[in-house]
Amino acid sequence: MAGTDRSRRPAKASASGDAAVPVFILIEPQLGENIGMSARAMLNCGLTRLRLVRPRQGWPNEHAVAPSSGADVVLDGVEVFETTEEAIADLELVYATTARTRDMVKPCVTPFEAAEEMAPFIAEGGNCGVLFGRESRGLTNDDTTLADKILSVPLNPAFPSLNLAQAVFVIGYEWFQRTTDINLSGVHIPKDTRPANKQELTNMFEHLEDELEAGGFFHVTEKKPIMVRSIRNVFQRATMTEQEVRTFRGVIKSLANIHRKKG
Amino acid sequence: MAGTDRSRRPAKASASGDAAVPVFILIEPQLGENIGMSARAMLNCGLTRLRLVRPRQGWPNEHAVAPSSGADVVLDGVEVFETTEEAIADLELVYATTARTRDMVKPCVTPFEAAEEMAPFIAEGGNCGVLFGRESRGLTNDDTTLADKILSVPLNPAFPSLNLAQAVFVIGYEWFQRTTDINLSGVHIPKDTRPANKQELTNMFEHLEDELEAGGFFHVTEKKPIMVRSIRNVFQRATMTEQEVRTFRGVIKSLANIHRKKG
Repeated sequence: MAGTDRSRRPAKASASGDAAVPVFILIEPQLGENIGMSARAMLNCGLTRLRLVRPRQGWPNEHAVAPSSGADVVLDGVEVFETTEEAIADLELVYATTARTRDMVKPCVTPFEAAEEMAPFIAEGGNCGVLFGRESRGLTNDDTTLADKILSVPLNPAFPSLNLAQAVFVIGYEWFQRTTDINLSGVHIPKDTRPANKQELTNMFEHLEDELEAGGFFHVTEKKPIMVRSIRNVFQRATMTEQEVRTFRGVIKSLANIHRKKG
Repeated sequence: MAGTDRSRRPAKASASGDAAVPVFILIEPQLGENIGMSARAMLNCGLTRLRLVRPRQGWPNEHAVAPSSGADVVLDGVEVFETTEEAIADLELVYATTARTRDMVKPCVTPFEAAEEMAPFIAEGGNCGVLFGRESRGLTNDDTTLADKILSVPLNPAFPSLNLAQAVFVIGYEWFQRTTDINLSGVHIPKDTRPANKQELTNMFEHLEDELEAGGFFHVTEKKPIMVRSIRNVFQRATMTEQEVRTFRGVIKSLANIHRKKG
């Protein structure tokens, strides 16, 4: 790290111009399809900086295009290198992805931990990269030695070997989760409605209970309170919208009419 | 959930006999390759229960075998159904994976949250499943309606569409992280050595500093303490093993000999 200036942007940024993401480096990838799937997985996670070291089929590679599903910004920005050393020359922090435990004394982190480390490092102007080995046999010991840390995905110990694009994806995924504040959780209410208010719910409950009373549903009077609570709680749990309450008023009316016709 | 008996195991367990994992259900998968890659991703995460609804190329499908990379336990246990309703009949909690926001009032969770929910649910004997739509267009609204919750992966909003096996993998990955205690982190020390103790380090430091003194490295006497601290701190950060200290004693000796030969 001697002589590193964290405030300096790398001289060779990706085509996207966005340097504030880690660089992913595929070493000797064998198939264009895997490069394309990796590019797609990267862009899914907002990553655009892809480097290749000695791609076996050369570059550009038409077989990468369809599997990338339109991740042109990644494919168009690909940089190709002859050696791993050249591919990581402008980086200050490099991870080597490998599933295997090696006889190598090097810190090991999970994708979660790597993302937790890379996010502030990059935010401060640092340049990070992640090395991925060839599909058939992973990283060589020499390439692993070039890295600061080993990045290992906790997986089924009996079946840990990941497809290349899956390895790319899981590291991108953890990066994206740590660096982006997208809130998908919770109940989405469509724009043309809103959560029902309690008056609307009470009206619906009373409508239902009146009809049930008329139909003789509460013929055991002492059980009425417990049945009313049970029915109301089902609808309370459903956290209905105003639109849904109106739909259910119609449902109750319709069922009650059948009942009246039968009766 | 009426009539649900959480203590009951499903009548129709997978070939693996391991019911304590979620069931993954691929609806109308188009290509055997994707089924194979999904099976591999599942087994990477310790998941074995795969169901297919109307696979377009039928089942079994030879195109699934190679991409599964030996996940035979998953492929051999595949169950095929004519309808989504039949495929989820024995489940009590079902998630629908979709990247799209829909005009549907349904709770939405992330893979992390789904894993946090499924783990205790399954631990208590419940049966969960996750629905995945066809490659080209995802789940239909009708299939999504059959689910309790929407499962959405937070991804690049400009490029959110995941490859089928990637969607399978990320949900399996989060499940595995929440339910397995595999500790890969930290520095792995090979069995044939151990961390160096402080006496060994001190001896190495003194050896180095003696040779540097002999070579005139500390000719500005008042700077010696700061230079000694700087050099020692580099080696302290490296947290060396006993084997590595011995290697470095050899390195120092070798360099000092060159120096003597030159001098």
